[in-house]
Amino acid sequence: MEELFSKVLQVNVRCRDCEERKANVRVTIELQMTTSPVHKRDLLVKLTDDQDPYFLFNLSISEEDFQSLKVQQGLLIDFASFPQKFIDLLNLCYSEQESHSPRFLLHLSCQSPVLEGPANFSVVETNAFKHLNHLSLRLAQGSDKEVKDYLAVCLSSLKAEKQALEMKLKKTEDDLSRQLSYAQQ
Amino acid sequence: MEELFSKVLQVNVRCRDCEERKANVRVTIELQMTTSPVHKRDLLVKLTDDQDPYFLFNLSISEEDFQSLKVQQGLLIDFASFPQKFIDLLNLCYSEQESHSPRFLLHLSCQSPVLEGPANFSVVETNAFKHLNHLSLRLAQGSDKEVKDYLAVCLSSLKAEKQALEMKLKKTEDDLSRQLSYAQQ
Repeated sequence: MEELFSKVLQVNVRCRDCEERKANVRVTIELQMTTSPVHKRDLLVKLTDDQDPYFLFNLSISEEDFQSLKVQQGLLIDFASFPQKFIDLLNLCYSEQESHSPRFLLHLSCQSPVLEGPANFSVVETNAFKHLNHLSLRLAQGSDKEVKDYLAVCLSSLKAEKQALEMKLKKTEDDLSRQLSYAQQ
Repeated sequence: MEELFSKVLQVNVRCRDCEERKANVRVTIELQMTTSPVHKRDLLVKLTDDQDPYFLFNLSISEEDFQSLKVQQGLLIDFASFPQKFIDLLNLCYSEQESHSPRFLLHLSCQSPVLEGPANFSVVETNAFKHLNHLSLRLAQGSDKEVKDYLAVCLSSLKAEKQALEMKLKKTEDDLSRQLSYAQQ
């Protein structure tokens, strides 16, 4: 599993019969390589919320999935160049998200009144004339098992961070007390 | 939700066709009060492993459940005194777990070759003559949803601990640098 991208991006969330709202969503793109039984590459797109442990939308795109996505959305690139192109689009959104009238925006929309079930995640460019849909991916809401696995990973990395912090605190205390006792002599 | 007990205890784990092994398991006992629609008290028994995020076995005992447990296991106490009696037994195990031949032991056993599915959690006293079963509870393995909820709680408390640590680190650095610069003057 290779992480290609992970950033908190501003996303316009729209549910049925609700006003559009802005949300900070972590977008992660990972490349998963499987060698057995067959050599296989899958691109994993994951939307999470650092503040809400239950928020998880994801999509796994295999090379075959990509072929239909390519036809359906009129993409001109192949599977190998898709991740970087997608990341370029996300970085465009990222670079413009503080602007008053950003040209590139991310949208997450679903058919139900609350954000649940399948949701469309799109990169949309707005020019003077119209909204241009650069890419639109249909994400599924994480199942209990997927959220469980995601939280287990979060927990383990948070534990490691906490441990590092404890060591740093210990070292800081030791260093500074040593310097202090030296200065007081 | 009131936490009555939470300690890491040594448990003898036995699965089908496997050698018995010792494991450190956190045993938590909580009292859950519901007032609506009816006044209801449930005792929640939870076994978790601080090192393994997926390890979760639990049991909810209502007053009615307790009546059958009482008959089935020949208990002489009522539901209100049961939690404390159970905690006393667990503390007995805790106090003896460093001993070479502990009189009170905890057992967790299941029918499958690995620890999964329903498992029996028992408090067993061993005397010169026989093993005496003080209490035996049938726990269910946590579902994906239950593990997910449990991990979300772990994550949120770990986040709070990490934040407290960050603040402490900042304060320590500030305090000691202030003292240091004062001593150096």
